[in-house]
Amino acid sequence: MSLNSFGRLFRVTTWGESHGPAIGSVLDGVPPRIPLSEEDIQPYLDKRRPGQSRFVTQRQEADQVAILSGTFDGKTTGTPIALEIQNQDARSGDYDDNQDKFRPGHADYTYQAKYGIRDHRGGGRASARETAMRVAAGAVARKILGPGIAIRGALIQLGEKQVERANWDWAATGDNPFWCPDAAVVAEWEDYLDGVRKAGSSVGAVVEIEAGGVPAGWGAPHYAKLDADLAGAMMSIHAVKGVEIGAGFAAAALSGEDNGDEMRSPADGGTEFLSNNAGGILGGISTGQDICLRFAVKPTSSILTPRQTINLAGEETEISTTGRHDPCVGIRAVPVGEAMMACILADHFLLHRAQCGA
Amino acid sequence: MSLNSFGRLFRVTTWGESHGPAIGSVLDGVPPRIPLSEEDIQPYLDKRRPGQSRFVTQRQEADQVAILSGTFDGKTTGTPIALEIQNQDARSGDYDDNQDKFRPGHADYTYQAKYGIRDHRGGGRASARETAMRVAAGAVARKILGPGIAIRGALIQLGEKQVERANWDWAATGDNPFWCPDAAVVAEWEDYLDGVRKAGSSVGAVVEIEAGGVPAGWGAPHYAKLDADLAGAMMSIHAVKGVEIGAGFAAAALSGEDNGDEMRSPADGGTEFLSNNAGGILGGISTGQDICLRFAVKPTSSILTPRQTINLAGEETEISTTGRHDPCVGIRAVPVGEAMMACILADHFLLHRAQCGA
Amino acid sequence: MSLNSFGRLFRVTTWGESHGPAIGSVLDGVPPRIPLSEEDIQPYLDKRRPGQSRFVTQRQEADQVAILSGTFDGKTTGTPIALEIQNQDARSGDYDDNQDKFRPGHADYTYQAKYGIRDHRGGGRASARETAMRVAAGAVARKILGPGIAIRGALIQLGEKQVERANWDWAATGDNPFWCPDAAVVAEWEDYLDGVRKAGSSVGAVVEIEAGGVPAGWGAPHYAKLDADLAGAMMSIHAVKGVEIGAGFAAAALSGEDNGDEMRSPADGGTEFLSNNAGGILGGISTGQDICLRFAVKPTSSILTPRQTINLAGEETEISTTGRHDPCVGIRAVPVGEAMMACILADHFLLHRAQCGA
Amino acid sequence: MSLNSFGRLFRVTTWGESHGPAIGSVLDGVPPRIPLSEEDIQPYLDKRRPGQSRFVTQRQEADQVAILSGTFDGKTTGTPIALEIQNQDARSGDYDDNQDKFRPGHADYTYQAKYGIRDHRGGGRASARETAMRVAAGAVARKILGPGIAIRGALIQLGEKQVERANWDWAATGDNPFWCPDAAVVAEWEDYLDGVRKAGSSVGAVVEIEAGGVPAGWGAPHYAKLDADLAGAMMSIHAVKGVEIGAGFAAAALSGEDNGDEMRSPADGGTEFLSNNAGGILGGISTGQDICLRFAVKPTSSILTPRQTINLAGEETEISTTGRHDPCVGIRAVPVGEAMMACILADHFLLHRAQCGA
Repeated sequence: MSLNSFGRLFRVTTWGESHGPAIGSVLDGVPPRIPLSEEDIQPYLDKRRPGQSRFVTQRQEADQVAILSGTFDGKTTGTPIALEIQNQDARSGDYDDNQDKFRPGHADYTYQAKYGIRDHRGGGRASARETAMRVAAGAVARKILGPGIAIRGALIQLGEKQVERANWDWAATGDNPFWCPDAAVVAEWEDYLDGVRKAGSSVGAVVEIEAGGVPAGWGAPHYAKLDADLAGAMMSIHAVKGVEIGAGFAAAALSGEDNGDEMRSPADGGTEFLSNNAGGILGGISTGQDICLRFAVKPTSSILTPRQTINLAGEETEISTTGRHDPCVGIRAVPVGEAMMACILADHFLLHRAQCGA
Repeated sequence: MSLNSFGRLFRVTTWGESHGPAIGSVLDGVPPRIPLSEEDIQPYLDKRRPGQSRFVTQRQEADQVAILSGTFDGKTTGTPIALEIQNQDARSGDYDDNQDKFRPGHADYTYQAKYGIRDHRGGGRASARETAMRVAAGAVARKILGPGIAIRGALIQLGEKQVERANWDWAATGDNPFWCPDAAVVAEWEDYLDGVRKAGSSVGAVVEIEAGGVPAGWGAPHYAKLDADLAGAMMSIHAVKGVEIGAGFAAAALSGEDNGDEMRSPADGGTEFLSNNAGGILGGISTGQDICLRFAVKPTSSILTPRQTINLAGEETEISTTGRHDPCVGIRAVPVGEAMMACILADHFLLHRAQCGA
Repeated sequence: MSLNSFGRLFRVTTWGESHGPAIGSVLDGVPPRIPLSEEDIQPYLDKRRPGQSRFVTQRQEADQVAILSGTFDGKTTGTPIALEIQNQDARSGDYDDNQDKFRPGHADYTYQAKYGIRDHRGGGRASARETAMRVAAGAVARKILGPGIAIRGALIQLGEKQVERANWDWAATGDNPFWCPDAAVVAEWEDYLDGVRKAGSSVGAVVEIEAGGVPAGWGAPHYAKLDADLAGAMMSIHAVKGVEIGAGFAAAALSGEDNGDEMRSPADGGTEFLSNNAGGILGGISTGQDICLRFAVKPTSSILTPRQTINLAGEETEISTTGRHDPCVGIRAVPVGEAMMACILADHFLLHRAQCGA
Repeated sequence: MSLNSFGRLFRVTTWGESHGPAIGSVLDGVPPRIPLSEEDIQPYLDKRRPGQSRFVTQRQEADQVAILSGTFDGKTTGTPIALEIQNQDARSGDYDDNQDKFRPGHADYTYQAKYGIRDHRGGGRASARETAMRVAAGAVARKILGPGIAIRGALIQLGEKQVERANWDWAATGDNPFWCPDAAVVAEWEDYLDGVRKAGSSVGAVVEIEAGGVPAGWGAPHYAKLDADLAGAMMSIHAVKGVEIGAGFAAAALSGEDNGDEMRSPADGGTEFLSNNAGGILGGISTGQDICLRFAVKPTSSILTPRQTINLAGEETEISTTGRHDPCVGIRAVPVGEAMMACILADHFLLHRAQCGA
């Protein structure tokens, strides 16, 4: 029921504002005796960390996570795990001139409308800085899931530029600043995004997340469906405007013959599906195939071009954002999407074990 | 935490199988003293009811809802409202030959994998018959919201056929069997779907749902975001594979300049947005604009064409479904989508009132 | 978050009013493949059923439960189990003269204050008739727990009369209309309660509930403590005003030496506690000993003696209740207390299995 | 569903161990624009703080709370409030010899049984140090409730010694180290507890908590009953073994005539009850009278006298606790009980406003 928590049994609560002293999270329901230290979490935070290429915000944050509770002798104890990151480079000054103006595309106006007060510094609670704690939680979720479940993500569209699926190479995602799985388009993307960046503009993106090794049977009808939980989780990420699973929106144009994934029994056992339009989920429950989803990220709303808006007093004005920002927030959304996938799967692993005993 | 409930404060629990004696729901948290009788609910059920045109399943169900608790003298009392519909036309025989086979695209395989048992009759709990109770809940949600909030839906794509948005006329949606807002395409759609139906095939669809009159301020960061809740709710509808809000997936290709909705202060008061790419939600909180989303429905998995599959014993076999089915389940998903929108909004109305007092 | 549900993973939702058409419940999260039919539930309802002796209300209700969903071929399917009992003997007339008066000790005044409306017929939703669904849920909970866990209850105090613990014989509880474990006091209790009944008065009671066979390790600090959940569950039973576990209130007067249960390791394995002041729970987690609690039930508020009160208009008046009532509601609270113990334990069994895997 | 959270709308999550780097909590759902700073919280922490008299543990902790998020310009913003206290005086050495032994009456054995691992240092997560965060949360809850609701507590029994209710004086509770409302017994209690302390022993206690100013109508049947939530909340406090409301266990011996609180309509308006056996709650909903409850605290389990126990290896041994401990933990439970009352009331205030709009 909490507004800032998600998950049923693996339960993640986050807190903190962009320019407050720290951000943090509490992870509840973690099984005991899992080896866990900061070293298990930090690599994922580093992957999301700002300032790593010219294509992401130049804000400098070490994003060093500390585990403040819930472990003993390097193992989880079953009690809540508190994680915390100190904020360092909070240059509030960048925003001061605009603090009474509502930035188009941002949550300024809606926070003010809802609460009658808002922390304007760097977007306050609405800042994508919150996703650092999702990434940290995802790292712990991966430990719960174990090495048998592999979660990975890729950027498949940058603005108007798409990858060629025939060129897909997961290994390539680590070799470029975009998590792009198509090495052939990277140079073009760099030029493209350099242009966007230098123009003080921004573009959107599409991210694809895949989870392999998930056994058949996770998820639960009708309101703990695995796909519904994933859709809600991905849509909760900052700037996400659409989520699709398996064939997704393209399924609308398919015939029943083309869509339904046929099944076979290979000689070596198990069940083989001849396609995966379902994206690994049927009736809200995993099929044992790869779980595959995509989500769309809108362009960064903070841009240099002056925009028409209003201020706190309701007066018409215009705004231009000069602070440090990502020309495409979709890039850093890749590790965040992976983390949300991990968290939802960890939750459903526990939920399935509760009801079905395995 | 319930698997078959959704909503935080307006809480909907559903139960029942396709071929059991009845289906039902319990609605908890409804404010007191709202006039409510079966007559408020039945029209919405009639809208979703099977057997109304040749384009939906010919199963005959009166779908007469009974209120078993929670009202007194025609008004809600604040205690749980139990709704129930008796099942009538449960022709289990249609399915008997196939009861041990897993229908591709259906949840047969995954229910069996999860539970080690399943009610195969008409899909059991996985049947879209469950959506009748969502529609009933939605009718009550509309009463909670009051007449100031208008929720309506339309079918904007049928298989490969799309509406022309320039022709959009909400009034047209009631004049054809598709809830199609473009009168110009109806005849073509009828021919098209007749062909699909006669071939024993099926197609998918895209549904658009709009809510007008929602004030700015509903929703809550980060894990009770209005858009995240809506995405989860829509994805939980049977056969839905994608959800997008506002500009949705198209936002990925937009520039920051094109995407951010600029704001003005009209002379007559209030706030005017110059566009609605946000779909009425920023930072998870409503902006006061129309809330607008779309979801994709996959083609009905039950088709006449024989399909390769396996059976309970793991043996390879094939299956052809001869029971009564919808050539496009997306049609009947329109009132279901409206209902889920109503339920989520009612929940957020109460949630906002709790925290912010209005 | 539901107001009419309890439990985290074994989740019970109840609905219905005393004089409505039916009462019911939905049980969610039940593990699959558990043999279950009405015959598993009915005996527990019969135990609670009114009209069985002169010491309980003479209202005649067959209380025949029907399972409307969630089972197939006599086994649970993992989907929600809907239970329903038709109301039969709803003699609303008994109450009509008093419908605008607030009965002292009843919830009339508070329901009106909260909701501004109430179903006055037989107490409406506030009626102890609701406990029939708790008892039904408890029967299903026992099936989840299996035969290794034995839950039983006894009435240990009737008004001012207490049992002699030295005479305790569980077998005796089934041989008298009080669930009294001390056969020696039964005749005296009968005389005593006959006097109360004939005077149109009522008395309170104390109930003791014990659960044997619960393994060490169920429960979870700090806000899913087994004792906290049990306390909340018992206090939610109609007319209960106090709950204590193990030594309970008497622990306040003990020294640390007398209270702490010492431990030994018997030669035949396991852990032996030399006493059970903890009532089988330490730090919110079961110790493996019997779980033992008591709760106090206030006297039935409906009595023949005229009482001062006010009416809906706020005018002073008096009221005398002539309807059929229990001279001691504590008697029928015994099976209700057993049921709540079973439900809470079933929930914690699943919760423990989720986190700790066994 | 979280194990370490409570409350539905005012939601409190706590984390941290006795000898970890810090303890903390996250408060979610707090209404916006409430003035709040550390100065509003610190006085309540000081009241609970150890080391203030010879009758409580001599552990020295400044217990300085920091607000890390959720406020801006000295007011709440509606986003989660993170509170944190650094641990200072964690003398783990006191416990080292006993780290493999299970202390009778403590949660050592059950944590080990449940999790297969435990942080033995000062009781780890099971330590009553966790209650500091409850007290901090309670301070914020009081701000939500506003000055119209007065919550106060008293120690009414210390071991075998009880207060004389005729001497009750709330003002006295602040003038002695026991929160004792009967000034006449203080000297005797001091001598008594000095004896207990010097003997290395301990005693239990009974605490009474009262809330005045609560309007009629808070609480909700049947599983969000105000009394049930209070019972669960109080029983979740460390060492509590019993909870009673209003007449409590004494109600069992009352007649219906003596128990039901009669009602009158005073000339100056409102509703007057002629007694308060209900403790301010009927049918789970507040009556508008003072809410009054009591809870029993067992004697501190850490005592000097050697006790029989077993160790991690299952071997029989004995244990004597020489660390710093409270001779009566019930004393410091007074502010904790007040805090839990405040938290539950704040939650129900919001819950009532959500459903009933006021």
